[in-house]
Amino acid sequence: MNAACWKRQLPAEIACEEFDLALPGGNATRARVHGPAGAPAVVVLGGISADRRPAADAAAPGWWPALAGAGRPLDPARLRLISFDYLVGAPGGQIHCEDQAAFLARLLDRLGIARLPLLVGASYGGMVGLAFAARYRERLGRLVVISAAERAHPMATAWRAIQRRLVRLGVECGAAEQALVLARALAMTTYRTPAEFEQRFTGPPSDGADGIVFPVERYLLARGAAFVERIGVERFLALSESIDLHEIDASSIDTPADFIGVRQDQLVPVEQMRELARRYGGPCRLHEIDSPFGHDAFLKECDLLAPLVANSIDTIPGIERAAVTETA
Amino acid sequence: MNAACWKRQLPAEIACEEFDLALPGGNATRARVHGPAGAPAVVVLGGISADRRPAADAAAPGWWPALAGAGRPLDPARLRLISFDYLVGAPGGQIHCEDQAAFLARLLDRLGIARLPLLVGASYGGMVGLAFAARYRERLGRLVVISAAERAHPMATAWRAIQRRLVRLGVECGAAEQALVLARALAMTTYRTPAEFEQRFTGPPSDGADGIVFPVERYLLARGAAFVERIGVERFLALSESIDLHEIDASSIDTPADFIGVRQDQLVPVEQMRELARRYGGPCRLHEIDSPFGHDAFLKECDLLAPLVANSIDTIPGIERAAVTETA
Repeated sequence: MNAACWKRQLPAEIACEEFDLALPGGNATRARVHGPAGAPAVVVLGGISADRRPAADAAAPGWWPALAGAGRPLDPARLRLISFDYLVGAPGGQIHCEDQAAFLARLLDRLGIARLPLLVGASYGGMVGLAFAARYRERLGRLVVISAAERAHPMATAWRAIQRRLVRLGVECGAAEQALVLARALAMTTYRTPAEFEQRFTGPPSDGADGIVFPVERYLLARGAAFVERIGVERFLALSESIDLHEIDASSIDTPADFIGVRQDQLVPVEQMRELARRYGGPCRLHEIDSPFGHDAFLKECDLLAPLVANSIDTIPGIERAAVTETA
Repeated sequence: MNAACWKRQLPAEIACEEFDLALPGGNATRARVHGPAGAPAVVVLGGISADRRPAADAAAPGWWPALAGAGRPLDPARLRLISFDYLVGAPGGQIHCEDQAAFLARLLDRLGIARLPLLVGASYGGMVGLAFAARYRERLGRLVVISAAERAHPMATAWRAIQRRLVRLGVECGAAEQALVLARALAMTTYRTPAEFEQRFTGPPSDGADGIVFPVERYLLARGAAFVERIGVERFLALSESIDLHEIDASSIDTPADFIGVRQDQLVPVEQMRELARRYGGPCRLHEIDSPFGHDAFLKECDLLAPLVANSIDTIPGIERAAVTETA
């Protein structure tokens, strides 16, 4: 076990453990195990800006309140939620979903989990889940993939490649943060949908000291500024590229799976989810949902996703059924 | 008449005249009249990167070979094609479609044309056409608008606002050209469609001295580099913003019109074209076409667009019907 390991009891008496762990090559990151020691383990992985904390604890909110937390399907009171901060690798070096999968295997070794009942991955986390199932088929009982396919769509690659070029230009010019703000602004346009923007952003531009600013522009700049607080340039570049390097052969995977696709997703068009399900080597179900939030549906559509994820959790051997709190 | 005026005969004996003209405020640009003096006049206006030359002459190709030129519907052998380089205005100042429309009115005065039989505008040119029809209703016989609506869609504004911010950041950093390349790369993703990119850009990235480059990325950078050769930063910023400032009330216009919308257009969603037709104050027809080229369909879909534009030309009083050359 590596250095900074700590355990503590939360107010709700739910165990939470965090520790650093390294791959043999030295690539290290921080992992988190949140839930009772005897409970079924579920690995939970999100997008490239997610961290190791899907569910809130007393110290901080989680990144996935829609599905993880008290009264949600991924409830640390009844499940042992396992996650980690994604590996980034050496600056300028490539990191692949397979590296994240290898780290996860090592993490499960460390936790003494020979076979994981369930992995739930959304966006980049879904790609990592597919990579894990492809390489460690005997170690995974069931896979839930939300909005992730066999490979990136060329249009999605185009949008991300422009973001990376923009950030690199900013770094060269000594304006890395401003560039990262714009890159995130661009990313947000691809995470959401024209329908949502049309609903939200009406009205004339404001004409201030910094020139004309349109309502949607102001929103995107604010989202970009918030992003810069949370993520560094190297991390962004490495994980963004990792998405575009992702490539798996669905026909080679036979882990029982649920795939959830969003018909309005601009980044992972639902056709790619259908293709994934069509080519998949194991038993799988494809669930298509409609959402004005597009790719971000996994963060937003509690009521649509909770029953689907709850159904997958119910397939875990020995799991107790639990009532999921209705959201208003 | 202003300074640099010239006339010459082309090999095909088609008259072509270019001259500079200014609005009363001093805002000046160059106009072009291409076709026989006695022929019916048609104003032809394109996107923000188009210039005053829709049809080729002996000296240079035109920007709209799909529809303008020998054997095409907008044939300078039988029509007098009128166009101009868009006004840009003072650096940092705003330019509106209404300014372009006012310039056009002055240009028609200069040419002694009290009433223009037809205006064909695509993209930004369609916005200018709508602005002209709204303000000079008695001077226009018929309007053809391809992929332009009453106002910009907020998602389209988002994409353009990011491009402008990016270019301004580049200017501040002394990297204006690199930034303009990236802005154009982003613009290209919005002009085209996911379906086209999926068809064209397959295969692995190349891994060279400048890192990983994906096929779609290489294409977009090449398009961006070609754009920088053609357009300056100030021009791009002014005209890009002009699109987002565009706002007309369709119910106030009664010029007979044909609207052409592209169902795959990401920038001007076909719903906006339907709304334009629904709210339009005059007689109009909406033609919807399918194209993998999305917003760029007006540059690409000769065979779909030629009959539609030809039909509008045929409504010009006294026009002779002409056979349109079939494209292969």
